[in-house]
Amino acid sequence: MRDTSRDGFLNRVEAHVLSHFPGFWRLVMANPRVRRWANKRIIGRAARRAPSRPHALSSMPVRGDAKNPMAGYTSWESLTDNVWFSRHRPPKVLPRYPDLETELAPLFKVRSSGPRISEDSTVLFLSFAQWFTDGFLMTAEDERRRTLASHHIDLNPLYGLTRQQTQAIRLQSEASGKKGRLKSEEIGGEIYAPKLFDENGNIKEEFKALRPPLGHARHLQNLLPERAAALRKTMFAFAGERANTTPFTAMLNTLFLREHNRLAGILEKANPEWDDERIFQTARNINIVQLIKIVIEEYINHISPYWFQLSADPSACWRAPWNKPNWIPIEFDLLYRWHSLVPDYFEIDGKKIPAQDTVFDCSYLTQSGLASLAVSASRQRAWEIGLFNTADFLVRVELDSIDQSRKNQVGSYNDYRESVGYPRVARFEQITGEADKVEALRRLYGDVDNVEFLVGLFAEDVGRRSAVPPLIGRMVALDAFSQALTNPLLSEHVFNDRTFTREGMNVIEETRRLQDIVNRNLGPNQKPVSISMTYQ
Amino acid sequence: MRDTSRDGFLNRVEAHVLSHFPGFWRLVMANPRVRRWANKRIIGRAARRAPSRPHALSSMPVRGDAKNPMAGYTSWESLTDNVWFSRHRPPKVLPRYPDLETELAPLFKVRSSGPRISEDSTVLFLSFAQWFTDGFLMTAEDERRRTLASHHIDLNPLYGLTRQQTQAIRLQSEASGKKGRLKSEEIGGEIYAPKLFDENGNIKEEFKALRPPLGHARHLQNLLPERAAALRKTMFAFAGERANTTPFTAMLNTLFLREHNRLAGILEKANPEWDDERIFQTARNINIVQLIKIVIEEYINHISPYWFQLSADPSACWRAPWNKPNWIPIEFDLLYRWHSLVPDYFEIDGKKIPAQDTVFDCSYLTQSGLASLAVSASRQRAWEIGLFNTADFLVRVELDSIDQSRKNQVGSYNDYRESVGYPRVARFEQITGEADKVEALRRLYGDVDNVEFLVGLFAEDVGRRSAVPPLIGRMVALDAFSQALTNPLLSEHVFNDRTFTREGMNVIEETRRLQDIVNRNLGPNQKPVSISMTYQ
Repeated sequence: MRDTSRDGFLNRVEAHVLSHFPGFWRLVMANPRVRRWANKRIIGRAARRAPSRPHALSSMPVRGDAKNPMAGYTSWESLTDNVWFSRHRPPKVLPRYPDLETELAPLFKVRSSGPRISEDSTVLFLSFAQWFTDGFLMTAEDERRRTLASHHIDLNPLYGLTRQQTQAIRLQSEASGKKGRLKSEEIGGEIYAPKLFDENGNIKEEFKALRPPLGHARHLQNLLPERAAALRKTMFAFAGERANTTPFTAMLNTLFLREHNRLAGILEKANPEWDDERIFQTARNINIVQLIKIVIEEYINHISPYWFQLSADPSACWRAPWNKPNWIPIEFDLLYRWHSLVPDYFEIDGKKIPAQDTVFDCSYLTQSGLASLAVSASRQRAWEIGLFNTADFLVRVELDSIDQSRKNQVGSYNDYRESVGYPRVARFEQITGEADKVEALRRLYGDVDNVEFLVGLFAEDVGRRSAVPPLIGRMVALDAFSQALTNPLLSEHVFNDRTFTREGMNVIEETRRLQDIVNRNLGPNQKPVSISMTYQ
Repeated sequence: MRDTSRDGFLNRVEAHVLSHFPGFWRLVMANPRVRRWANKRIIGRAARRAPSRPHALSSMPVRGDAKNPMAGYTSWESLTDNVWFSRHRPPKVLPRYPDLETELAPLFKVRSSGPRISEDSTVLFLSFAQWFTDGFLMTAEDERRRTLASHHIDLNPLYGLTRQQTQAIRLQSEASGKKGRLKSEEIGGEIYAPKLFDENGNIKEEFKALRPPLGHARHLQNLLPERAAALRKTMFAFAGERANTTPFTAMLNTLFLREHNRLAGILEKANPEWDDERIFQTARNINIVQLIKIVIEEYINHISPYWFQLSADPSACWRAPWNKPNWIPIEFDLLYRWHSLVPDYFEIDGKKIPAQDTVFDCSYLTQSGLASLAVSASRQRAWEIGLFNTADFLVRVELDSIDQSRKNQVGSYNDYRESVGYPRVARFEQITGEADKVEALRRLYGDVDNVEFLVGLFAEDVGRRSAVPPLIGRMVALDAFSQALTNPLLSEHVFNDRTFTREGMNVIEETRRLQDIVNRNLGPNQKPVSISMTYQ
């Protein structure tokens, strides 16, 4: 058992109250006013765990210095130039960094006893986590302290980051007679994005403005030419460069594409005088807010071990002092590396497919069909997040993350505990109750104060009814709430009928789970499905 | 006398209390805690006159529509793409627009009885207003709904808007042996920016990254070649494209340049281990905050008729719900067209110079010297803001502003009264007490509801101890407070010794007026001067 003496008394009381007494919490939720009040308090408490933005520091290096060291001080650029990550804590160099290949790689590899399977997270959960966070955790490939992110939850995996990208995937209303739609094509009676490559394996002219699928060239290079050519044929013309990465991320992008076109149809009918542009923009407004609703009401509620089910009430932060413009911190970017969730095999329509074979292979989506793939994803459990549990083909990615955290001089695990209101640990046994992890940490770091942020985060044990270990849970909530409800579309003078239309507000109101959107966008003759991020 | 029956009872009470009873207000200011409380209340009240940001709408036209109409609805782009102005009210086309040349030009021209002189605003005030607002009211020349602004008060007239511009005016520390300095040269024993043009009238190679002085080419084209060549020789290498416009704007830019280099010297001495970059950035941090202090404690206090002297207390808005990221509204951009302030002659060192002759002629600065020119500027009163009071050579600029307001479909004067808590007027006599203005408005607009925003603003009479008419006063306060104290450098976790150093915090503390900075940066053997935005 883990030594819990350094969890902090108030932290323990709070965690206990929130994750026990389901009857009490059901009572709280039964009264709409009490529920709204409790929701605001719980969200506010999570968002105030650390100083609110603007953060004094960013991940910017000293400009114009060839040695390119971190700038550990505040400048006008560190406060305004958000091509860099913001950061919660100043850069710090730790006394000892275990060697990545020889010392840290073994820390991620699955135990000989086999992987730990998640208690209740499904492959749908892991797919959503990947697809969703790909929309705002975007490290630049050439400089791993920089980001390409808009820092907003803006459905950019679907709509892209620039107007040029958005335009490339929009349907010309003159040609189609339909307003505000995204380009699509039918396969097997279902609607998908058009394919990205032409029959010669070149990106189609109309999609030249899109960024090609990130990493696909490198990945395809290592395959037989026939296999590479086959994969190219499966990829979609998505404005988000990461949406083709797996059939599951492509599935989610396709889902929101279908929903966009459905919304455009509703808006066109209700507002026959509107032009193409207004219908497009209004459908996009509604679609973005639907994503945020699902993030809070399905995704975060799945992650959290609380009985109280949080709701995406925009007014909860209208007057909150932490409602400040988004800026993704490097620590948030790093703590979200949940690669250990990914199992070594995916079960699709009853067949077991090695996970790495699904990379860039979107044919699993079109062959199964969207709803059917979503059902497969909710019937299989993900692996558990943590050390000694990463599938072989992803260990390299874990080491890259550690490397990135060192390049950004992210400090120690204990520093970050302190930053968000946990006492510093004094013994390795206070991080994890598992003997082999304790032993490995002691051997690699000697002193608990030397444990690197990322390694410490993933060394912690995942609690009951929780999808993530405790420090990740607290830090993810901090940045999730302080960056999701702060979306400009949810702000006090924007979240209304004028922005979304009455029809749009109704759709938003009715959307709580991915399943709601899937069942509005079934193929012909398909029956409604039941899907979930929580294993049932 | 003006008919005040539509001023609103509470507005009248509030205005009366704040602009009377000097003894009471002195008492309030005598107690630091009471003063801080009152300061926060008065600032908060001013900032909450209209809904806080984000505004639902921007000045963005419908994209991709050749007819390029205004987009009067909310889109992800209107909420995030700040190359457009934000806007307080939706676009609105008024029933009748008087012709600019034949009908509106006469409304601006000075009465045959001569100009109205301001009660207590000096040329220093008008110069500061011009130079300061040139830092954030930047309409794009080719599309008058767009802006080049950073939307921050960031001293960009001195430091520029891009890193390339900033780098061009920085001194190389390897060559100079000094750290963090801006380039400068000595003229008559005083420090100035280097000259922009070489002896052949070409922009020097090292300054090619700077934007050339805005409008100088067009202006010089209309002059004799000798005069144009002479003016080129006077212009400075400023990173702000508008700082060379007059010797007074150049004076203020030079003042902050000298102060930057002085601060760099202090920081270099106190932190010998710091590199060039850190000294530069920290001096810039301090300099920006000094500007904001002067804006609130000298400039806004001069504009306001209140006896209570506002102070730039950053904590006043740390937890305020209106503390949201800056975004200059088109209405704010327009209401700041105070060209009627400019007299037809400037008195410099006792000589009367036609105002238009000073345009782009910075020799008046170097010949007089900085402190001496500032003294001249504080000994001359500006003209009064309002209709029938614009110097001939600026009437064209006033008409351009009206044209810009029509291009942006800014609505009526009455609409904006309502937006910021004034009752709508029902009679022209409720706008102004001057018969010729009433008559002209009635003739041009017929109905008070048709009066254009800009025309109505400037038709109002300027009150006692006020620098601006009442509606401008309220709207300027709204956007000034909600965009000055929200600077990231003043934010809760940034405004401290770590960002500015102890020495820097002291300098900030000691800076309340332009005079403080002028007297720290005198030429050799110069005596301290007494200068003021308020005529004494």
